Amino acid sequence: MKYFIELGVDQLVKVNAYEVAKKAHVSPSTVSRVLNHRSEVSVDTAQRVDEAIDSLKFRKRMDESKKDLIIVNVPELSNLFYTEILEGTKAASNASGFKLLIDQTEINIESIDDFIESLDELNVYGIVLLNQLSTKLLNILSKHTRVVQCCEYNMESNLPAVSIDDCAAAKLATEQLIASGKNKLAILNGPHNFKYSNERERGFKMALAKGNLKFNEEWNISLPAINYDIAYPIVSQMLNSVNRPNAFFCVSDTLGAAVISAARKYNFKIPEDISVIGFDNTIISKIISPSLTTINQPKFQEGYSAIELLRKSNQKKNHLFLKTELIVRETT
Amino acid sequence: MKYFIELGVDQLVKVNAYEVAKKAHVSPSTVSRVLNHRSEVSVDTAQRVDEAIDSLKFRKRMDESKKDLIIVNVPELSNLFYTEILEGTKAASNASGFKLLIDQTEINIESIDDFIESLDELNVYGIVLLNQLSTKLLNILSKHTRVVQCCEYNMESNLPAVSIDDCAAAKLATEQLIASGKNKLAILNGPHNFKYSNERERGFKMALAKGNLKFNEEWNISLPAINYDIAYPIVSQMLNSVNRPNAFFCVSDTLGAAVISAARKYNFKIPEDISVIGFDNTIISKIISPSLTTINQPKFQEGYSAIELLRKSNQKKNHLFLKTELIVRETT
Repeated sequence: MKYFIELGVDQLVKVNAYEVAKKAHVSPSTVSRVLNHRSEVSVDTAQRVDEAIDSLKFRKRMDESKKDLIIVNVPELSNLFYTEILEGTKAASNASGFKLLIDQTEINIESIDDFIESLDELNVYGIVLLNQLSTKLLNILSKHTRVVQCCEYNMESNLPAVSIDDCAAAKLATEQLIASGKNKLAILNGPHNFKYSNERERGFKMALAKGNLKFNEEWNISLPAINYDIAYPIVSQMLNSVNRPNAFFCVSDTLGAAVISAARKYNFKIPEDISVIGFDNTIISKIISPSLTTINQPKFQEGYSAIELLRKSNQKKNHLFLKTELIVRETT
Repeated sequence: MKYFIELGVDQLVKVNAYEVAKKAHVSPSTVSRVLNHRSEVSVDTAQRVDEAIDSLKFRKRMDESKKDLIIVNVPELSNLFYTEILEGTKAASNASGFKLLIDQTEINIESIDDFIESLDELNVYGIVLLNQLSTKLLNILSKHTRVVQCCEYNMESNLPAVSIDDCAAAKLATEQLIASGKNKLAILNGPHNFKYSNERERGFKMALAKGNLKFNEEWNISLPAINYDIAYPIVSQMLNSVNRPNAFFCVSDTLGAAVISAARKYNFKIPEDISVIGFDNTIISKIISPSLTTINQPKFQEGYSAIELLRKSNQKKNHLFLKTELIVRETT
């Protein structure tokens, strides 16, 4: 929708026709007439448009030289996984003299214009995305500012990213469940609009195939959110049925906690009757009883590296994969 | 340090002499000379100063009319207590058309000038403070923007605030420990630079006095941070000594979780041997085993009300106290 007009000799500064129109209190087509057919417009109007352009150019030139604000866009804060990543982004920003602000905007085709306008107003240096965005939205966004993807990434995009290998980590976790002698495996997953969700399902399926176990669609649960209270009744129902799983691969420690609580309710022994593996190695996996076997991902380092990529990146493809590890505790 | 110069007839817009100097690339004293003894300055310099003033005035006038950004300043994000408050601020901001960004700046006498400059640059409408600030810092800050205190508040300040009654809540929790038959009570507290920490200690002591129990300074623990890994070894040491407490009032569920883990390590039965009460009613209190008795505070509503106060407030004293309640679970 937005188009830019290059003005005069100053090619460094692009001024948006809509911005000019808004500032000069005229329509965008009037701005266009002033630029292309000046004689059709009154002298007053033309002067107002000229002044708006000068003022915008002046401001933009000044602003470009002192960009020191990074925005981290996150899906939610109630998951301790994200808060540890944010600690990493904070440490890296502090170390390099950048300011950091956390934003929870849901970026979609309706909101992107407003979002970009905000980035302009705030004069941001760049953005770290913890949300999954479509290729189209990433293209729009990356034309306006520097973008680094963190944890989530769009596989079609060429933008720099830092993440783990979700598929390999899920395969490792699932293999551990199979190695503990379990043969009826369920996956407790997040929403499928996240890349991690699809990749972990893929790794889960790969391990099942390798172990000659069949994938049961009934036990393939995609929750609308990573939320204990949503997971608990669903797992309870699964455990209360005749045909029930004896192992759960959970894409978050929070979901693993729900499995442990539900298993306790029906007096199943962990890990004898039911094995459980979580994901993220948050404090929850450690304090719950029995303590939860989980996949550790280097959360702090993911956040830290995302800021480093943003600072150094020339926006060429650069995908940093960080290592995960299995933390074996009492639930397997 | 900063001084303002009122310029011409436009009393609405105050332009800072330092800003003008910076923009015009002259010294503040030159700005002063241009305004007071114009003839002493070269025509070029005077013109540069005039242009800088006009540009700043224009920008500030424009900016004032479209302030729609609220900043929430938080001490940390790894405590789930804060993330639930932030959910409330987000919901209220969305409902009223404000943008919201989360900031983790440690505001002190060294950082306040930079912080205020950032608020100016970002053109913020106001700020919600979850940090405790000195009266001096609050005075400086509130001269530059709207301020509402949330959870933490400075008792000497007249700025609007929303919080619970920490003293009364701590007294209630401690009375519950005493009612369960325990007589050797410890308090596991946060750093004393937070108001909640002092108020909860006060409530704890009031309940002890009412129950004719003595306050033991050895069992009055003020941790440098609300952190499981810091609390666990300290509680372990307390439980491993001959003279040990038989009840813990913890100012956070995270600390309550550390007490439960340490008690389990030394094979103490909960609540028979050791009683525990947490604070905040986060997900941790529910998923841990045994489930943790805790004080619920209306976290979401505190965040929501803080934004409402910011929007409606004329910065007159207005302190909203929200209700807490005791949630009795398995540890008492």
